[in-house]
Amino acid sequence: SADLSNCFIPGDGIGIEVVAAAIEVLKTVAKNNFELNITNFPWGTVFYKETGSYLPSDFLTTLKPFDAIPFDAVGAPDVPDHLSLWGLLLKMRSPLQLYANTRPIRCLTTPRLASVHPSALDWLLVRENSEGEYAGHGGRSHVGQTWEIATETSIYSRHGVERIMRFAFAAAQKRPRKQLTVVSKSNALRHGRVLWDEVATEVAAEFPDVHWDKELVDAMTIRMVQKPHSIDTVVGTNLHIGILSDLAAALAGSIGIAASSNLDPTRGWPSMFEPVHGSAFDIMGKGVANPIGAVCAAAEMMSWVGEERAAAGIMKAIESVCEIGLLTVDMGGKLNTMQVTEALCKALGS
Amino acid sequence: SADLSNCFIPGDGIGIEVVAAAIEVLKTVAKNNFELNITNFPWGTVFYKETGSYLPSDFLTTLKPFDAIPFDAVGAPDVPDHLSLWGLLLKMRSPLQLYANTRPIRCLTTPRLASVHPSALDWLLVRENSEGEYAGHGGRSHVGQTWEIATETSIYSRHGVERIMRFAFAAAQKRPRKQLTVVSKSNALRHGRVLWDEVATEVAAEFPDVHWDKELVDAMTIRMVQKPHSIDTVVGTNLHIGILSDLAAALAGSIGIAASSNLDPTRGWPSMFEPVHGSAFDIMGKGVANPIGAVCAAAEMMSWVGEERAAAGIMKAIESVCEIGLLTVDMGGKLNTMQVTEALCKALGS
Ligand SMILES: CC(C)[C@H](C(=O)O)[C@@H](O)C(=O)O
Ligand SMILES: CC(C)[C@H](C(=O)O)[C@@H](O)C(=O)O
Repeated sequence: SADLSNCFIPGDGIGIEVVAAAIEVLKTVAKNNFELNITNFPWGTVFYKETGSYLPSDFLTTLKPFDAIPFDAVGAPDVPDHLSLWGLLLKMRSPLQLYANTRPIRCLTTPRLASVHPSALDWLLVRENSEGEYAGHGGRSHVGQTWEIATETSIYSRHGVERIMRFAFAAAQKRPRKQLTVVSKSNALRHGRVLWDEVATEVAAEFPDVHWDKELVDAMTIRMVQKPHSIDTVVGTNLHIGILSDLAAALAGSIGIAASSNLDPTRGWPSMFEPVHGSAFDIMGKGVANPIGAVCAAAEMMSWVGEERAAAGIMKAIESVCEIGLLTVDMGGKLNTMQVTEALCKALGS
Repeated sequence: SADLSNCFIPGDGIGIEVVAAAIEVLKTVAKNNFELNITNFPWGTVFYKETGSYLPSDFLTTLKPFDAIPFDAVGAPDVPDHLSLWGLLLKMRSPLQLYANTRPIRCLTTPRLASVHPSALDWLLVRENSEGEYAGHGGRSHVGQTWEIATETSIYSRHGVERIMRFAFAAAQKRPRKQLTVVSKSNALRHGRVLWDEVATEVAAEFPDVHWDKELVDAMTIRMVQKPHSIDTVVGTNLHIGILSDLAAALAGSIGIAASSNLDPTRGWPSMFEPVHGSAFDIMGKGVANPIGAVCAAAEMMSWVGEERAAAGIMKAIESVCEIGLLTVDMGGKLNTMQVTEALCKALGS
């Protein structure tokens, strides 16, 4: 195996606590297998308060040489969310062309849905990560007047829709069931949705062995609740999958174990791997944060850089601690961050 | 009690079947109480195929004199959804200024969520129904070229946000818990969301006895699954509550019983009351459609026109048939549409 150069961005709050867990686990799998070079970038709210921005102006050239970027969480109670997120997380996703956001969902404990077998929740959600509702276009006029108007414009480029659709069909093709659901809101949105649906039909022709269907985003929430077993791979816009993936993680158990990979499938830029949970200042410093989301993100990263065996090993370790209930409080367990991390490392060793 | 003039728009598919049930039930409550004048407008896909449009050009003046409009469902397999919906349902919501869409959620059978008591799912969802993501703005350029761009612009007017926020705070104030959650996506959307959040804070000052908080739309799905009892009244944009209300109905049991009221709180126009479900052509003509959604919508209508006793009577009848399991297949029962309707009328009589 080749060497691996990672730059970690722990970020804020419990991000700083769970990143340590992910590093422990990575060091354990690396042992005797590959060299792991870790660089830490302290970009987050402390950095922002010192320098006035969340990222240094040369962050793109700084990040470029790395193989992958584990990122944890950003946001602090005394900074408005849109500042911290557009300053750090969202500022990286689009310029790095991390256009494919994958969110694997698996139920490792008990599903929140009554009378559903955990195996019914084995999904891969694929999110368009570079445009759509998050394009940032729009503005306000006549601020504060009774006739004030604000707009938010979603941008869909054929290039952007084609590449995410192709990525999603290819991802579905690699899964045993080879099934893809294309989510949109074709009955109410009038322009972007036409493009989205047209491109889906065009790209589907390139993947004749993938079974695909369409679902409206609102109806998709019903399907997740009522027919979870009918779902395999799902693709949708930035906002739609943003919502559906939080729902999916909640239905599957705890969002504390969910990971999100921000990928540049062209491999021009290092991809970024994060747990789905936020910086959770309310539990910061207590040592009780669930490290599994960050560790899951590390497994996704290992798989992306080609270390499939390491990835599988980490996932097996996660499965085993879940099975024997060595878990943090949010998942119904009694352990703290460090104890779960130790259990993971021990499971990896054995 | 005064006379009541309703014009029914059964629409398409099972809409035509469940409207009959709603009329039966309304006739039963009207008996000895008030005069019910029913006019039927056959606007739907058959009308569209004959005339080229879903609504006659003078539909606004035709509808104006009525007290309320029970509407059922629109859409047919051989007409693209966006044509039927923008041709009928969405064409009425905004011109009639039915800006407040309320969706009461109650769990009358078993919740889909494991270990949650049905009483935890007693919510009122309020949806902005006239602008936002459904404004219809946007377009496509360079159609079919690799550099094609499509846009969808959400429009938020201060007037529109203020009126729905005031409506929602007032609705929360009338409920025992007096609690409101304002949903937005403040961390990612940059313009409309600022206005939405600002107005919430301003309007909250007019309702000091309402406890309110904010929630992101993605996080709200998690809260619905994990902490249903923490929710009472919810307000959000057209798309956000469109999604969350389908989820809520699914979590509470069956979307077959959910109703949606499209209200003009200024009472300048007749309000429109619909079941949440669609035209469901797959079960059309079989007589198995669940009538409870349409009957629930009729109860909401009675309440809106001031016939609170009739509304309460219908809701009690629905509760009792649910309790003894006189239900259609989608809710785990064995009865057909007509049998459930008879059970409802019988419960009303007793
Ligand atoms: C933090 C926030 C801006 C972000 C998003 O909505 O994209 C997060 O919720 C996510 O899904 O990764
Ligand atoms: C039919 C569709 C356009 C509609 C909507 O999304 O508004 C429906 O789903 C609803 O929620 O009333």
